[in-house]
Amino acid sequence: MTSALRVLGIDPGLTRCGVGVVDVRADRAASLVHVGVIRSDTDLPIGERLAVIAAGLRAVLAEHRPHVVAVERVFAQQNRATVMGTAQASGVALLLAAEHGLPAATHTPSEVKAAITGYGSAEKLQVQTMVARVLRLDALPQPADAADALAIALCHAWRRGAPQAGAAADGALTPAQRAWAQAEKAAARR
Amino acid sequence: MTSALRVLGIDPGLTRCGVGVVDVRADRAASLVHVGVIRSDTDLPIGERLAVIAAGLRAVLAEHRPHVVAVERVFAQQNRATVMGTAQASGVALLLAAEHGLPAATHTPSEVKAAITGYGSAEKLQVQTMVARVLRLDALPQPADAADALAIALCHAWRRGAPQAGAAADGALTPAQRAWAQAEKAAARR
Repeated sequence: MTSALRVLGIDPGLTRCGVGVVDVRADRAASLVHVGVIRSDTDLPIGERLAVIAAGLRAVLAEHRPHVVAVERVFAQQNRATVMGTAQASGVALLLAAEHGLPAATHTPSEVKAAITGYGSAEKLQVQTMVARVLRLDALPQPADAADALAIALCHAWRRGAPQAGAAADGALTPAQRAWAQAEKAAARR
Repeated sequence: MTSALRVLGIDPGLTRCGVGVVDVRADRAASLVHVGVIRSDTDLPIGERLAVIAAGLRAVLAEHRPHVVAVERVFAQQNRATVMGTAQASGVALLLAAEHGLPAATHTPSEVKAAITGYGSAEKLQVQTMVARVLRLDALPQPADAADALAIALCHAWRRGAPQAGAAADGALTPAQRAWAQAEKAAARR
């Protein structure tokens, strides 16, 4: 697994922030490194809730040292009651990635569904089932936020072959990412 | 000015994040400590833009050591093109306040206008004119984001007499804030 790309996927949220770390090899095979949920108490002031999320994300970054961070993109049109908190949590996630010197990307829910199931309008259960199969898990990852975080991480690794708007240019890759991209190209030539 | 409350007001934004620091005395007289705008390059990835904003806010926190932070509240209904970036920047501001052990509050634009001019639908120019008068400035603070940040800071100091939903209870005040609250009560009895 020397050429595996390690991706931290984040499903941002204040009450439950899903985190999933996967190693994805050049042949696109993937394995689970870590999955979990960071929770913050709804009684806390917003700043302290964000600090709880930040502390949890820093712990995951320190322990698992991903090469890249992928965050689900938040839209203003989504559920109004929680969208601002979700956006604030995503801001914290993107800030921490940058402060750790890691490239960060965002993916929309339909990009994630399409990457995992081949179908942008897939049901959540289909996505979770496919994530469990790809990672050879005995059960569906729980709660849903954790499963979503794994799906975002897999989506990011699998989409990297196809350059996308706003994606980092090759020159902006870390040495590990460059090695992985080269390994991927070599695998494609075989 | 030993009993002055020092407030950092933040008008969150990715392209321009307004910051204003004011000292407000128990008799509600206010003076300017610092005003400025933190800018981030629109060409940078979002995470790096948030890191630029965070670095600028940390510098202001370290240099001016406010007692409390007040941030303009963002709504999903506002301008869709920029609202997510604004929410992410506000999340970073609230995170940094918490990580510096400072209480943080949010105020809506109409709360700010009402606190400064007595009228929640006041024009921006009225608010800026009043801010300049209160702080005895020779000219209107520029750009508008800087003026807004000062207005948010003044709003927060002046509204503290009236407890609001979600505001910190007295027990959550810092020693400096408690001293200020006591001085304010003493001034009101005179």
